[in-house]
Amino acid sequence: MVCRSLRVLVILALVNSVFAQSAGIGSSTLMGFSNAGSSSQRALEARFDSYLKPDNLRDWMKRLSARPHYLGSPYNKENAKFIADKFKSFGFKTEIAEFEVLFPTPKTRIVEMTAPEKFTLKLNEPALKEDATSSQQKEQLPTYNAYSIDGDVRGALVYVNYGTPADYEELDRRGISVKGKIVISRYGGSWRGIKPKVAAERGAIGCLIYSDPRNDGYYQGDVYPKGAYRSEHGVQRGSVMDMPLHPGDPLTKGVGATKNAKRIDRKDAETLTKIPVLPISYADALPLLRNLDGAVVPDAWRGALPVTYHFGGGTPTVRMKLEFKWEMKTIYNVVAKMQGSERPDQWIIRGNHHDAWVNGASDPISGMVAELEEARAIGELTKTGWKPKRTIVYCAWDAEEQGLIGSTEWVEANADELRKKAAVYINTDSNGRGFLGIGGSHTLEKFINEVGRDIPDPQTKMSVWERARAQQIVGGSPTQRAEASSRADLRIGALGSGSDYTPFLQHLGIASLNIGFGGESGGGSYHSIYDSFDHYMRFGDPGFAYGIALSKVGGHAVLRLANADALPFEFTNFADTVGQYVNEVTRLTDTMREDTKTMNQMISSGMWQAVQDPKERLSTPATKDEVPQIDFEPLKNALAKLRESANYYQRASSGRQPSAAAQKNLDEILYKTERALTRTEGLPRRDWFRHQIYAPGFYTGYGVKTLPGVREAIEQRDWREAREQIAIVSRVLDGFAAEIDRAAKLF
Amino acid sequence: MVCRSLRVLVILALVNSVFAQSAGIGSSTLMGFSNAGSSSQRALEARFDSYLKPDNLRDWMKRLSARPHYLGSPYNKENAKFIADKFKSFGFKTEIAEFEVLFPTPKTRIVEMTAPEKFTLKLNEPALKEDATSSQQKEQLPTYNAYSIDGDVRGALVYVNYGTPADYEELDRRGISVKGKIVISRYGGSWRGIKPKVAAERGAIGCLIYSDPRNDGYYQGDVYPKGAYRSEHGVQRGSVMDMPLHPGDPLTKGVGATKNAKRIDRKDAETLTKIPVLPISYADALPLLRNLDGAVVPDAWRGALPVTYHFGGGTPTVRMKLEFKWEMKTIYNVVAKMQGSERPDQWIIRGNHHDAWVNGASDPISGMVAELEEARAIGELTKTGWKPKRTIVYCAWDAEEQGLIGSTEWVEANADELRKKAAVYINTDSNGRGFLGIGGSHTLEKFINEVGRDIPDPQTKMSVWERARAQQIVGGSPTQRAEASSRADLRIGALGSGSDYTPFLQHLGIASLNIGFGGESGGGSYHSIYDSFDHYMRFGDPGFAYGIALSKVGGHAVLRLANADALPFEFTNFADTVGQYVNEVTRLTDTMREDTKTMNQMISSGMWQAVQDPKERLSTPATKDEVPQIDFEPLKNALAKLRESANYYQRASSGRQPSAAAQKNLDEILYKTERALTRTEGLPRRDWFRHQIYAPGFYTGYGVKTLPGVREAIEQRDWREAREQIAIVSRVLDGFAAEIDRAAKLF
Repeated sequence: MVCRSLRVLVILALVNSVFAQSAGIGSSTLMGFSNAGSSSQRALEARFDSYLKPDNLRDWMKRLSARPHYLGSPYNKENAKFIADKFKSFGFKTEIAEFEVLFPTPKTRIVEMTAPEKFTLKLNEPALKEDATSSQQKEQLPTYNAYSIDGDVRGALVYVNYGTPADYEELDRRGISVKGKIVISRYGGSWRGIKPKVAAERGAIGCLIYSDPRNDGYYQGDVYPKGAYRSEHGVQRGSVMDMPLHPGDPLTKGVGATKNAKRIDRKDAETLTKIPVLPISYADALPLLRNLDGAVVPDAWRGALPVTYHFGGGTPTVRMKLEFKWEMKTIYNVVAKMQGSERPDQWIIRGNHHDAWVNGASDPISGMVAELEEARAIGELTKTGWKPKRTIVYCAWDAEEQGLIGSTEWVEANADELRKKAAVYINTDSNGRGFLGIGGSHTLEKFINEVGRDIPDPQTKMSVWERARAQQIVGGSPTQRAEASSRADLRIGALGSGSDYTPFLQHLGIASLNIGFGGESGGGSYHSIYDSFDHYMRFGDPGFAYGIALSKVGGHAVLRLANADALPFEFTNFADTVGQYVNEVTRLTDTMREDTKTMNQMISSGMWQAVQDPKERLSTPATKDEVPQIDFEPLKNALAKLRESANYYQRASSGRQPSAAAQKNLDEILYKTERALTRTEGLPRRDWFRHQIYAPGFYTGYGVKTLPGVREAIEQRDWREAREQIAIVSRVLDGFAAEIDRAAKLF
Repeated sequence: MVCRSLRVLVILALVNSVFAQSAGIGSSTLMGFSNAGSSSQRALEARFDSYLKPDNLRDWMKRLSARPHYLGSPYNKENAKFIADKFKSFGFKTEIAEFEVLFPTPKTRIVEMTAPEKFTLKLNEPALKEDATSSQQKEQLPTYNAYSIDGDVRGALVYVNYGTPADYEELDRRGISVKGKIVISRYGGSWRGIKPKVAAERGAIGCLIYSDPRNDGYYQGDVYPKGAYRSEHGVQRGSVMDMPLHPGDPLTKGVGATKNAKRIDRKDAETLTKIPVLPISYADALPLLRNLDGAVVPDAWRGALPVTYHFGGGTPTVRMKLEFKWEMKTIYNVVAKMQGSERPDQWIIRGNHHDAWVNGASDPISGMVAELEEARAIGELTKTGWKPKRTIVYCAWDAEEQGLIGSTEWVEANADELRKKAAVYINTDSNGRGFLGIGGSHTLEKFINEVGRDIPDPQTKMSVWERARAQQIVGGSPTQRAEASSRADLRIGALGSGSDYTPFLQHLGIASLNIGFGGESGGGSYHSIYDSFDHYMRFGDPGFAYGIALSKVGGHAVLRLANADALPFEFTNFADTVGQYVNEVTRLTDTMREDTKTMNQMISSGMWQAVQDPKERLSTPATKDEVPQIDFEPLKNALAKLRESANYYQRASSGRQPSAAAQKNLDEILYKTERALTRTEGLPRRDWFRHQIYAPGFYTGYGVKTLPGVREAIEQRDWREAREQIAIVSRVLDGFAAEIDRAAKLF
């Protein structure tokens, strides 16, 4: 389940003017290395690069995606063993870490329209002669949303657009309630699990989610098998557990789901949905949508099906019956270690999941095979006598698709050790042709920019970093263009959720990166039986040139982190980005205050009502409490302190090395700065999420909320909590700055 | 052919803050009247209002739209006679002014796809049992675009989006030429006549124009007869003559097309198209679009048909065969005069066209019946002994749909008299439920704002002016909201083309207004057989409340202009708006300079090429000559002088009256100020268009270009001409300001 917004997570920057020529690849001194060390490190990386073979990626993808390999399936276990054997053969000390987790699979799936006409939904993706593995129907998981509860419901259908809180506000204005009704939402606009969550909060009794061709189908491009995009019968499977509360096994929050772990009752599991949910194709959705009654929806709600989109609420009547087998299944994480020669207790962790919804050639195998090839090349390096200073840990996670379960359970089971030893976690997932996208901890921003500057882009004569920057300059907004032109480094995106970095970053506070290429491949095979080797070889990265580029970015990052004299953390970029976040929440409050005032005045003056078409019979929205003045001074003071400390560390460390005795201590302080950004109490109403700077949104799912405690309190108009959270985050930033000061003093 | 963007032409403003209560309807002193005169004028208007009867509008609409009544049809002549009889019965001295004009009607219309599959287009709108007049197929004009040339062409089809110059730049980047090919364009984005014009300039041999359901069909709302919108077989007829060169009869440019007028040969007529053109339905377009090959078009080019939109260029192959009967037909303008008692040689002219493409209940009859009812009520007033000071002229134009022919020929035939006597022209066309929209000469902006403040909105308790303002405040952009909240008057839109004001305003320089209600009715019956009484009674303004409101706005405007002591021209609002235009062209130049520089640098640095997907094989755009510095000082100086003179006149005239002897002279200076905005030489390459402030765009059609000489030179990157035009327009504004000074001195 790669975060689909990876391409937007973004990246970006340069030293001089927009069109300055960048320095050639590989000339400068590397962060954390001496001059001489930089040269020998670059020589090592050149050797590493020379080992990489696209044919390996191709062969392994073919092997790993040859049959469906989801959580609990026989081929999933075989794949884990295959991967473990590979890691072993590369020279890694490898184990398979097993957990027992709750996993529902469908017993009964019935959806039918009973009025005004009869229609029984097919709920099936047909085999295609052009796609060899699509015919493995006996082994495929049916189309469904995992962790929907059982249910048998019947009611009028209401179209809710993307099913976000804002969409329900629009319904409120129309006087349309979903209470006692079944909602139909299109995919997009938020993470899928948000749709049934909000629908249930609003009193709906069932939820259908369909792929509209506007977002994912013929509107985007030719459909499979002619083109890459989702055809009328394609369905997006996916988990709908309430991951913004916590990911992982629903029965073992916060602890590893080992055989004998303490489990709660399924009925008490808070991350299961409250209503039954099912994903459907647009062929199945069309007859339902055509029969919706009521007013026509606003422009932003309309999809690309050849019908007029209505709200519904009266017709049609739909019945949904869902029953699941709720079973405990064993999952298989592969964990492969290469012991560090000098600082074995500092771990550089690299991961990608291996499980898929069906065959998963793109998601996740395209990333998995790049990681495997990285590990193989590192193994080759050890044959020449090289050893990493720090311990390298290569992981292949299971059960990511169901809710980051493999990585979460492993992180929870090994939390104490990881808190001590884990320096950095680097994640990949699906990969394609195009542009380097990076999200992650901004303390690693300068480092990963440096890595990107050294990797050649397979299609152009520039580095992958330069091409990413060029994309921002050519295709970006004026603001993006200005920043990419003038800022030394490309600004990396903040991480929300959607792949296995979440437990590392947001639960334990381990500085993390998520990297991948995309923007030129793509299509609509996501979580369908058509995410196949055949599809990837036509529309993905058939020559695996970008697979190799990913191996290089990941591999160089791992090798530099493993070999550096001092870990390449840097804090001025972090301070710069936190400064943006502080500006954003301040402006957000000002804008809300202004908007609330304007809207309240429009309503109370009668002007709002006066411009409504009387035939449309809209309800007048209630006025809202005015937005009070919020004191952001504590946050601004903390930010000032943070900037000061970041600059202090930059000056202190510039061109200097700490004493050999201090180096290990320095490293520990550096990589534990990210821990200082967490609180054991976590975020309000979701204590599993401990990071105070980055979190997936409570009502967006994958989509990140930065300064989440403050921002979500403001968005929810809870001014008391906003003030509390400002105090909390300010203290967190103060503590973080103190750690930077401690590090600086070691020089 | 009402200008469809009427609703956007807009309006707008208020004296105090956003939510200030406006003064009650009808309290202040009217412009051009004394205090006492204002009271009696308002009393007169109240009497006028009391005469208005919605049933008349309904009965007349039913009568006038009962059968197709296009140029040259028997029922068109009957309607002209019916209208003339009405005006006579109301007490107007009425004549029917006839002209002989060129009018082609189809003999042969064949469009077929010959490869990769066979398909013959239906080119027919079917009768509907729910629509009584839709079955009058023998009398209906077939679906076609008038003034397309004859032709029999065959070629590969290329999709060109809206067919604007910018769309062809996109095709250039893809290396797609339309040379020797047939283009298919969707309606929208520009006036329809622009599509074959630009296509022919680019070497295309034929042009199909279809109604995409995204713009005009099920995407917008339920289709007819269930709802108001265009169904799959609906076709938009319309003229494609090159009206931005000149409207009116193609054979008699600049002179009235009287029986014995000097005519050019048809082969020399510059306003006929260069290639054959035909409009088609989306049911007819779908098989063609489905067979387009080549790359997928960009997002902004995609419509709402259930296909992936491609550029084409290889398949399909299409044949178009069109033959027309090119006949001379008689047209019938109805012109009804009521002699002024004091200043008979000052004419207040009011017009609406009476011809339609088919039955035309909405376009134009909904406006025509409101005008008729106005005239009837004025007739009633004269029965009480009232007489207008100035002469009132009510007109019903023929042949508007084919190219403003009726009004243009009448204006050309009576140019000398009109130049002397015409004070103001007030136009209406289609009318519906909703918001007052006003376009026109900004010297009349304050006046028409004043009129609007006195008319109650039928659906709310506010005036139509207040509701229009509320719409800007509630629904407008932040800039619109700020302006509507703080400016004393709603800013009226500038007039381009699209209805009968064009010859008055843009050829002769007669200050004009175009008014109408809309925004809550609408639908997709425009220029189809479904623009019927049945359609209007369900989806238009069935109770004719907005028809009556239009009679009031038009009637009050006519009565005030006819009765005022001094004509209510005002110049500070004009100066304010011209100031905006000057800013716009200055900023446009700066933006083009910046954009050109950025784009040139992106291209020459290789950055532009680097971010393109190599699989898409885009051509690199050529760099463009840099935009030089343009000296706008002459224009800014002229603007400063204009502001000074406008303020001078305001101070001079405030609360004062000129001597009785000077009044007639003052009026003449005032209404001839608009003449001072014209030049006999006209605009570059189109001398018929003489107005230097407002013109339809050479490449937009209906869409207005303000300061057209300057703006279009800049847009075309002709810097020499831009400098010449700056000098010209500056002199024109100086001359205009001198006239204002002359007027001010009379106080």
